[in-house]
Amino acid sequence: MSEQLKTSLGIWALGPMVTRFVPGGYQPDHAGDTTAQKVRRAVDGLGDLIDGYEFHYPAELNEDNLDQVREALGDHDVYCLCGGLHLDPRFGKGGFVSADTAIRDEALRITFRAIDLAGELGANMIIWPGIEGYNYPFQSPYRDSWARLIDAFGQCAQHCRKAGVTLFLEHKNSEPAMKIMMGNIGMTLHVIHKLRAQGLDNVKVNMDWQHLIMNGENLGEYAALLAAEGVLGHQHANSGWGTFDDDNMVGATAFMETLELALELRRAGYGRRGERLGFDLYPYTEDQVGAVRRSVLQWRFIDGVAARIDDSALREAQNRKDAIAAYELVYAALGA
Amino acid sequence: MSEQLKTSLGIWALGPMVTRFVPGGYQPDHAGDTTAQKVRRAVDGLGDLIDGYEFHYPAELNEDNLDQVREALGDHDVYCLCGGLHLDPRFGKGGFVSADTAIRDEALRITFRAIDLAGELGANMIIWPGIEGYNYPFQSPYRDSWARLIDAFGQCAQHCRKAGVTLFLEHKNSEPAMKIMMGNIGMTLHVIHKLRAQGLDNVKVNMDWQHLIMNGENLGEYAALLAAEGVLGHQHANSGWGTFDDDNMVGATAFMETLELALELRRAGYGRRGERLGFDLYPYTEDQVGAVRRSVLQWRFIDGVAARIDDSALREAQNRKDAIAAYELVYAALGA
Amino acid sequence: MSEQLKTSLGIWALGPMVTRFVPGGYQPDHAGDTTAQKVRRAVDGLGDLIDGYEFHYPAELNEDNLDQVREALGDHDVYCLCGGLHLDPRFGKGGFVSADTAIRDEALRITFRAIDLAGELGANMIIWPGIEGYNYPFQSPYRDSWARLIDAFGQCAQHCRKAGVTLFLEHKNSEPAMKIMMGNIGMTLHVIHKLRAQGLDNVKVNMDWQHLIMNGENLGEYAALLAAEGVLGHQHANSGWGTFDDDNMVGATAFMETLELALELRRAGYGRRGERLGFDLYPYTEDQVGAVRRSVLQWRFIDGVAARIDDSALREAQNRKDAIAAYELVYAALGA
Amino acid sequence: MSEQLKTSLGIWALGPMVTRFVPGGYQPDHAGDTTAQKVRRAVDGLGDLIDGYEFHYPAELNEDNLDQVREALGDHDVYCLCGGLHLDPRFGKGGFVSADTAIRDEALRITFRAIDLAGELGANMIIWPGIEGYNYPFQSPYRDSWARLIDAFGQCAQHCRKAGVTLFLEHKNSEPAMKIMMGNIGMTLHVIHKLRAQGLDNVKVNMDWQHLIMNGENLGEYAALLAAEGVLGHQHANSGWGTFDDDNMVGATAFMETLELALELRRAGYGRRGERLGFDLYPYTEDQVGAVRRSVLQWRFIDGVAARIDDSALREAQNRKDAIAAYELVYAALGA
Repeated sequence: MSEQLKTSLGIWALGPMVTRFVPGGYQPDHAGDTTAQKVRRAVDGLGDLIDGYEFHYPAELNEDNLDQVREALGDHDVYCLCGGLHLDPRFGKGGFVSADTAIRDEALRITFRAIDLAGELGANMIIWPGIEGYNYPFQSPYRDSWARLIDAFGQCAQHCRKAGVTLFLEHKNSEPAMKIMMGNIGMTLHVIHKLRAQGLDNVKVNMDWQHLIMNGENLGEYAALLAAEGVLGHQHANSGWGTFDDDNMVGATAFMETLELALELRRAGYGRRGERLGFDLYPYTEDQVGAVRRSVLQWRFIDGVAARIDDSALREAQNRKDAIAAYELVYAALGA
Repeated sequence: MSEQLKTSLGIWALGPMVTRFVPGGYQPDHAGDTTAQKVRRAVDGLGDLIDGYEFHYPAELNEDNLDQVREALGDHDVYCLCGGLHLDPRFGKGGFVSADTAIRDEALRITFRAIDLAGELGANMIIWPGIEGYNYPFQSPYRDSWARLIDAFGQCAQHCRKAGVTLFLEHKNSEPAMKIMMGNIGMTLHVIHKLRAQGLDNVKVNMDWQHLIMNGENLGEYAALLAAEGVLGHQHANSGWGTFDDDNMVGATAFMETLELALELRRAGYGRRGERLGFDLYPYTEDQVGAVRRSVLQWRFIDGVAARIDDSALREAQNRKDAIAAYELVYAALGA
Repeated sequence: MSEQLKTSLGIWALGPMVTRFVPGGYQPDHAGDTTAQKVRRAVDGLGDLIDGYEFHYPAELNEDNLDQVREALGDHDVYCLCGGLHLDPRFGKGGFVSADTAIRDEALRITFRAIDLAGELGANMIIWPGIEGYNYPFQSPYRDSWARLIDAFGQCAQHCRKAGVTLFLEHKNSEPAMKIMMGNIGMTLHVIHKLRAQGLDNVKVNMDWQHLIMNGENLGEYAALLAAEGVLGHQHANSGWGTFDDDNMVGATAFMETLELALELRRAGYGRRGERLGFDLYPYTEDQVGAVRRSVLQWRFIDGVAARIDDSALREAQNRKDAIAAYELVYAALGA
Repeated sequence: MSEQLKTSLGIWALGPMVTRFVPGGYQPDHAGDTTAQKVRRAVDGLGDLIDGYEFHYPAELNEDNLDQVREALGDHDVYCLCGGLHLDPRFGKGGFVSADTAIRDEALRITFRAIDLAGELGANMIIWPGIEGYNYPFQSPYRDSWARLIDAFGQCAQHCRKAGVTLFLEHKNSEPAMKIMMGNIGMTLHVIHKLRAQGLDNVKVNMDWQHLIMNGENLGEYAALLAAEGVLGHQHANSGWGTFDDDNMVGATAFMETLELALELRRAGYGRRGERLGFDLYPYTEDQVGAVRRSVLQWRFIDGVAARIDDSALREAQNRKDAIAAYELVYAALGA
């Protein structure tokens, strides 16, 4: 990996930075920006640090603003489209899991259109089913909800196959639904196994780092496991404190866990088949371009440390599960 | 406590139910409602279940809409005004803790006006310093921030004293600031001790139940401790899953913990000096009036069970720390 | 379910109650008890409340003490044998995942003997791979560890098939390994899918309730999902505060979650094919027999409430995801 | 701080490494070691890396083995004695909080003897009230328990004053009691304020890092706050994953948080009045001397990075709460 991993950026990092307490956002000066304007701001500020961009469909990118956005992108590409049902209040109680056929059909229709557009653009499709869940015990018919969820993912995967699109599934334990059904990597693998049983093998995993961190899922272990299963599809790089979905700058916390992830991505040859490092940041009160730039630079530093770890010595220590020898190697790479 | 505790309701339960993903809210039909309209809806739907209401200053109640709101309130009162700095993007990096004198002064000015209005209305003042914190390690000058925070609380308490207002401090560990400085009941007591050392004794605690639950703070213990210290000022009743600030209906989860709290409130004689049970709910996708009504009714059921616990037998069991005997009494009160 | 679910009890509830701080146990008077003595104490104290018992192999039940234990059991049966690698310091860095062939082979040999004994006794086999994990980042060769873990489970499942034994897999996120690889229900399903792909279908899930609770895994949802997948094998009933593996009495906390689980077990017809309610308790400082009895009685109360919920009305509410209507039904069943 | 902070080590790092599952320990070869033997092993292996040692009274150090231990210590000192009620099953339901006068008096008597010995040795006294709590809701008479706890701390502080000993209080949220009453730094400050009100000012705080980390208490903030209050007494250095009390090697995780702590300790002049860096490690399956040595060396590396941070530039960034500028300085110090 003498050359850097290619990168992408979720454009939502450049919005007004809304919270439930401040609907107008912590950065209200960006409230009126069109997607094209956000892209232009990002491209101007970040240049070659970011290779491509990611957009929610239809809220951020759709058939109507496509030309404008492309112009703003210049020679950058659309790397992923992302399902945006969670941005639409009609799906507040779920889309794919809804027992209301009209709502569910509409959720699928919108997602299919997103997939079609991804196909046209040569982009990947991310589905993060953050509204497919519930807020209360006793509120949900779990068995039916799960059947509907798997069925919907199956329809989406099939639609992706027709469109020549790779589908990345992304998990999270909570928010916006308090209990999201596909709540951890294990449940994501469960979904993938169910789809494989239907012959659908174009589905991989998008690892949103803070979603793992807030779940107690150790980044390096999961990257290695997903790579071994052939489903390590994409990364949403960020960091956080461990409980909420902070979407903080990469390497701000969870430094050692991020460093181990860099090592495991290297071991897995991540990037060789075109995989990228996506950035999913939400810089509430920070300069947005600055937060992205810091994240890229901090990742490069961390990845550089990973490159300096004596991996054959580390493998030998790991076979003995010798944490002391392992850390001696890690700190040596840090310069100790 | 043959008669029910008096109640109050935070009017924000009747808003559009915003999330960071849906700035227009899950219930956008309520987006345009004035506070008076929300009050009317609440009063019409809830009647005598709710005695008074609570409002953020100035976002929900201020000098300009006071007459309208009062008219809508009918014979219900304004029980608390709540500081609303967290609703104002100017204070995204903190108000009381800001090193920028202009911002800090403005935060204090607004809060003083809120206190003045509370004084005129005979209401209590709640300060929940949710924006007084930080999002990143290395971001804050902690020593200065703490000094400014304590100083600001002192100024507020002094202003309250002049206005004849009781100040309720409310803690939380996170959101909107990822790390809120006054993050647990212990730190709230620390603040109160610091203010007492300045001779300020008009400061009590508002226990937001879900803020305790998400902190691992056992409701009953803290109610008993705060009562013993003479600082059990107010309750914000709700429930949740244990990690986020769900603001769910009372008794939806944490049932046993809520039951024990009811018992400890009875032991403390809570309500005898006019204390009320405030409801702080955020029914994202539920009928708002219905969620409040359910909460009141579920509280009454739980409180009724607490009343049936044989307290002298329980005290005897507790002196031996005999959990088995204790639970036999509790389940007997439930009807087992 | 007019008749009660059959029950079983993990005999470890009757030991000296060790902690890492008190190796002799909080109840050192039980330190010298043989397994037969513990069984006799349990049978005498609990009678028909408990139908069968569960034992770790070889620490608690083995070829040598089998006759004694059977005599003590009287007409109670051995319902499960449990793998006990976590009780043996030789496997402190893992057994199935060990890169040391001698250690791994020994781990498998011991487990096979346990399975053989389970087969002879007509019992089920539980494997909770609590020592298959790691304590530090950088300590483990994840890819190899996972391959060895899946392979070992496959060998165990195959051995079970030959012995006519059903294998129950039990997850946990942490303790004794700080990071246990099969750390949640999703990862358990992943393992089961991998084994199914090898043609092994005699593997189901043992839901240890506190292991789910401390993981944020909502009991009712998972019971419904596992039942739908045909892998809801066994229950280890208990409760706790939500962070550690407290193994407290059933219904002491997580009351609503336990009630919802009771409802979902009823919906799934749990018990009709011989499934039981196992109790996995660790009453550190309580009377052991008393803690088990309380747990059974509290479960029966909770299950009785579940039976009174108007399920057709609830299903109707759930199809609308109407939490308010759902809770009205739940509280009505409680007697509100 | 051109010279290193002086250090101390809790001798329990050199024991058999017990868990509740393995009473004989993961390292049973150390099960029979006397304290003097452990000290000799530590002194031989660690030499000048560790200046002094810490011991629980009476389990590890007492009047009977004092001479032996002192001989083994050579020119190293006893830096702290630690209360050891949690090691004694008689206090399984609490010592200081017990309603049983005989038990409470015995708990106080033992603690007073520990203080006396600390006084003779010129050592500090640590009380970590880990058994002063409860396992269940409804189990405890909270008001009485808190009154007894504060009273006992008062008696201990008074006894310390007579003996010329500084008392360090150490908090934790859970384990061994599931709910420890003095569960966070805020509650520790509450206790200290209560004691100050009695005129007792010889009480400071021992920050056990993992106890803060598992509580979501950010190390740097609390060090700064405690220093500002004049109660930053001692450190128990370690690390962990964020949920349990892992007592892992320093700098294994929470790297950035530890780095910020190093910075704040420097800002506070920690060490200038003789404060030390104590190590509280529990290397379950690692070489014990090796784990301590790694911890010291990793701390020195981290502290060296802290020394390279441009503090005046950082202060300037912090006054603006500019996280981006802050991290640029931090990564520059790391060598980026």
